[in-house]
Amino acid sequence: MRKALAALALLTALPAIADDAAPAPALTMQQVLDATQASDWRALDPNNTLLMDLPGGRVVIELAPQFAPQHVANVKALVRAHYFDGLAITRVQDNFVTQWGDPKAGEPGARSLGKVATSVAPEFARSAKGLPFTALPDVDGYAPQTGFVDGLPAARDSADGHAWLTHCYGMVGAGRDNAPTSGPGNELYVVIGQAPRQLDRNIALVGRVVEGMPLLAALPRGDGAMGFYDAQQAMPPIVRVRIAADLPAAERPRLQLLRTDTASFTALVESRRNRRDAWYLVPAGHIDVCSVPLPVRPAPQAATAP
Amino acid sequence: MRKALAALALLTALPAIADDAAPAPALTMQQVLDATQASDWRALDPNNTLLMDLPGGRVVIELAPQFAPQHVANVKALVRAHYFDGLAITRVQDNFVTQWGDPKAGEPGARSLGKVATSVAPEFARSAKGLPFTALPDVDGYAPQTGFVDGLPAARDSADGHAWLTHCYGMVGAGRDNAPTSGPGNELYVVIGQAPRQLDRNIALVGRVVEGMPLLAALPRGDGAMGFYDAQQAMPPIVRVRIAADLPAAERPRLQLLRTDTASFTALVESRRNRRDAWYLVPAGHIDVCSVPLPVRPAPQAATAP
Repeated sequence: MRKALAALALLTALPAIADDAAPAPALTMQQVLDATQASDWRALDPNNTLLMDLPGGRVVIELAPQFAPQHVANVKALVRAHYFDGLAITRVQDNFVTQWGDPKAGEPGARSLGKVATSVAPEFARSAKGLPFTALPDVDGYAPQTGFVDGLPAARDSADGHAWLTHCYGMVGAGRDNAPTSGPGNELYVVIGQAPRQLDRNIALVGRVVEGMPLLAALPRGDGAMGFYDAQQAMPPIVRVRIAADLPAAERPRLQLLRTDTASFTALVESRRNRRDAWYLVPAGHIDVCSVPLPVRPAPQAATAP
Repeated sequence: MRKALAALALLTALPAIADDAAPAPALTMQQVLDATQASDWRALDPNNTLLMDLPGGRVVIELAPQFAPQHVANVKALVRAHYFDGLAITRVQDNFVTQWGDPKAGEPGARSLGKVATSVAPEFARSAKGLPFTALPDVDGYAPQTGFVDGLPAARDSADGHAWLTHCYGMVGAGRDNAPTSGPGNELYVVIGQAPRQLDRNIALVGRVVEGMPLLAALPRGDGAMGFYDAQQAMPPIVRVRIAADLPAAERPRLQLLRTDTASFTALVESRRNRRDAWYLVPAGHIDVCSVPLPVRPAPQAATAP
C-alpha cells in the first residue's frame, strides 16, 4: 500500500514540477503511437484467440491462460466441440455485462459439455511470481497496485503475493452460480459499462475482447431481471465460435497489439494521464487502470518477396 | 488530500475490524431499499426535468442548475424554443459518449439558437460553499474527495474550495470546442462507458439521465472518427424534447429518487462497498463514486381521496 501512497503524493506535486522545471515532452497519444517501432507491437497468438461470429460481424477475444489455465482449456475444448455454435446471447444488462451461452443451461434440452467437467477449481487470483507486471504509479481503491500483464489490465497485492485480472470494459469472464466451482467456461460474459471491480477475485476472467466490442455493447438490453432476455427468440444468436489456429492462416485476424512492457506504452499512459490536447484545461494527473487504452492495429503488410 | 489518505488507511484496516469486532448488520441493497421510508425519497422537480422522446421511447434527464446555472438556463430556453425537435443523435462512440444536437451545426443551414448566446462562461466547477455534500470515505485518484450532492455524483477539493460534478455513466454535459466558452448547451452528450473522469473540470455537466439510458447506450456506434455518424440519414432522430413542467401533470414522469443525504443512502453505499450476497467471496472494501447505484422508482400511488 505504501507504494500507492507515495505515488499519490508525487502526483499532487506534479503540476508544480511541470510549471517550474524543464517539462517532459508533452506528447499526445497519436504522437506516441506514430513514434512506435515494430518491436513495440505483438501479434495475437492464434492458439489463444477466439473468433466469435455474430450476425453483425466478428468479435475477436484474446484468451488469458496465464491467469485461468483450466478455464481457458475448457473454453477451447468447448469451442473445438462446436458447443457455442448456434447458441445465443442470453443477457444484456445495461452498464454491466453481456453474457452468452446455452439458453437451456440447467434445464432439459441443455447441450452436453462433452468432455468438459461441469465443476472447475476457482482461478480467481494466482501467484504474482514470475508474472511480467508493468505497474501503474496511480492509486487504486480496489487493489494495492494495478498495472498490466501481457496487455491485460491486472492488479496485485504484495502482502499476499497474489495477482489477478481486473474487470475493465471489454474483459471476458466465465459466469458462475454461487458455488465458486460452478463456472467451467460454458457461459461467458463481457463487461459493457463502468468497471465492476467488485467482481475482481470473485470470478475467473479468461480474456479480453480486442476487436468487435460494439457488437456486444450495442445490443438491445434484456427485458427480464438482471438483463436476461425473457424470450428465447429475442436472444441474438451466435453463428459460430472458432479458435484462430484452427482456421487457414489467410482467414485469421491480422491484428497487432501494443506491448504493455515497453517505453512506448509508458509514454502512452502518460499521454492519457495528463492530456495535453488543446481541448484540455486541467490535466487529470491520474489515470484509472480501466481508462488506459490498449491499442490494436491491423498488422502492417509484410514487405513483398522479390 | 490528507483526508483521502486517512480514509485509505482506514480501509486497509477494515477487514480485520470486520473479523474481530461485532460486525454491522450485513444488508443487501434490496434489504436497504425495502427498509426505506417515504422521507428517504424525493420527487423530480418538473422545472428541472427534461423529457427527450426518441423513436424507441423516452429519456428522462434531471438538470443540475446548482452546478451549471447558465448552461441549464440555456438548455431550457432551447427546449422551450423547440430547438432540439427533429434534430438528431450525431455521435455514438463506444465506451465513451452518445451526443446529440444539430447535424448542420457550424455549417450553412444550421438552426439558430435564437435568444441563447453562442458563448457562455465556463461552469466547470463552483464554490463548494453551501453545497450539501455527502462525502464518501473511499479514496479516489481523480479528486481529493468524492461524494454526492442532491443525488448527483460529485467531487470537491478543500484546498481550493471547489466542487464539481463527476463524469459517471449517465451524466449529461454540454459539448464544446477548444474554446472553454464554446459550449452553450445546444450540443449535449451522455457518458455510456467507463467513467471518463479526465473530463471533470474541463467541461460543464448539466445533469443526469434518471430513466432511459438503454435508449442512448444501445445505439449503433457511429462509423466515422470519434464515433460521429458519417451520413446524416444514419443518425437516430430526436422526436422532441420537453420540460416536464410544460406538460399537463398527468403526462409528467412520476418518478422518485433516493435522497443521497440520508442514512438509507449511506447503508445502500455500504451494501455495495462490501457485497454480502451469497455469490460474493471477497467483499471489495471499496466503492468508486461512479459505481454507486442511484435508485429511481415509480412514485407510489397516493392514497385515493375519500
